[in-house]
Amino acid sequence: MSAPKDDRKTEDGEAVRLAQALRRDSVFFHKNEALIDALAGGGRIMTCAKGQVLFMQDDVAGWFYVVESGWVKIFRETLDGDEVITDVLPAGSMFGETAIFSNSTYAGCAEIIEPATIHVYPLPVLGAAVRRDPSLALAMLEHVCRQNSAQALEIEHRSVQNAAQRVGCFLLKLCGEYREGHVTLHLPYDKTVVAARLGMQPETFSRALSRLQADTGLRVKGASITIDDLDILIRYTCSACSNAFPCEDH
Amino acid sequence: MSAPKDDRKTEDGEAVRLAQALRRDSVFFHKNEALIDALAGGGRIMTCAKGQVLFMQDDVAGWFYVVESGWVKIFRETLDGDEVITDVLPAGSMFGETAIFSNSTYAGCAEIIEPATIHVYPLPVLGAAVRRDPSLALAMLEHVCRQNSAQALEIEHRSVQNAAQRVGCFLLKLCGEYREGHVTLHLPYDKTVVAARLGMQPETFSRALSRLQADTGLRVKGASITIDDLDILIRYTCSACSNAFPCEDH
Repeated sequence: MSAPKDDRKTEDGEAVRLAQALRRDSVFFHKNEALIDALAGGGRIMTCAKGQVLFMQDDVAGWFYVVESGWVKIFRETLDGDEVITDVLPAGSMFGETAIFSNSTYAGCAEIIEPATIHVYPLPVLGAAVRRDPSLALAMLEHVCRQNSAQALEIEHRSVQNAAQRVGCFLLKLCGEYREGHVTLHLPYDKTVVAARLGMQPETFSRALSRLQADTGLRVKGASITIDDLDILIRYTCSACSNAFPCEDH
Repeated sequence: MSAPKDDRKTEDGEAVRLAQALRRDSVFFHKNEALIDALAGGGRIMTCAKGQVLFMQDDVAGWFYVVESGWVKIFRETLDGDEVITDVLPAGSMFGETAIFSNSTYAGCAEIIEPATIHVYPLPVLGAAVRRDPSLALAMLEHVCRQNSAQALEIEHRSVQNAAQRVGCFLLKLCGEYREGHVTLHLPYDKTVVAARLGMQPETFSRALSRLQADTGLRVKGASITIDDLDILIRYTCSACSNAFPCEDH
């Protein structure tokens, strides 16, 4: 197992941070303080270097994760050996939690792509709670249905959005709570990973980013992207989508 | 509402067919005979002409559906007015059931694309049962997680499979229980719908089908496709996928 719980007792400060992350970043733990305490008590905080692998596809799933800082890529390998990046996760993202319903194995591999602080929680504790508490099962069902909607939207975008709009949509997801005005975002340093996440070649991604700069006025400086007027980007991107911004599926 | 329950009492024969379809086509009603009876008793069977719309995106969801025969397309419209086909459903498919968790509205539109017989079931009966019965909630959670995996696979395929492999994968899904040897499949008459479902132009779809014929020996005659050796198609298609055939996600 890639993220074993170590034997030393989790320090109080760590448990507090672990609990806070669950309260902040997930909807389906809402108000379930006993469960949050159990997950935080059995969890740990890992400092991860670039390249570190958290789990491999089909590994037996013992943990789920929340990104405190850094970036994580989720990918799968085809039988031919090609790597397919299915997600690139920023701070605040939870992953691995749905493995409790997939034969308890992970559906993809998870690898650190920028130095990261990762919260690790015991999956069996969550699994037992969901099986015991019908209201938690329903909350998790809604959570998974929202993921379903987000994926359906992604498939839609690959049909109708041009490359610049797809990059725009990726940036809008990163805006989180910011819904108007001026925003500065930080992408992972390695843009080829973001390109792969969006299903495009690196050179297509570069052209799309240039086009976005010309068409919406956003500014790119290294890994930082500054959006002076979010509304222009929203109009540009969301016209080729069946959802209106801000969309619940993000 | 597009599929109102009519006032006349459902005939016994119809209720039996409605119940049989739920037993046959869905995993999550398994052994829950009281629920199946309630759904069949409140359901009806509709004979639908090509072009008939069952529901529109964002309609309040009152019903869920199972295709007995014919074909149904699920699509959404972007703000710019483009139609995006997100699914093309053959006999045996269930749809609309996850609307109990999406503010009770449908995430897309459903339209008949080949004359169809459609089973219609009351969604509030399912919603109440899921909220009442924890084991049903868990079964539905597994069902939605499987849909999640299938969508993740679809996103993967759009990154790594060539057009011929994507058509091959679509055909393998239609094979259902057939997992080796000789199979004959029937596509909807209008191939442009299948092409749109696979995110490709009609001419790309035609070329892909020709390439599949040349590379795997399958034979196309009008809307019928004959596969003499399923194993050749499986090797050809599934090499560019992270799942092995037969994949649970289909």
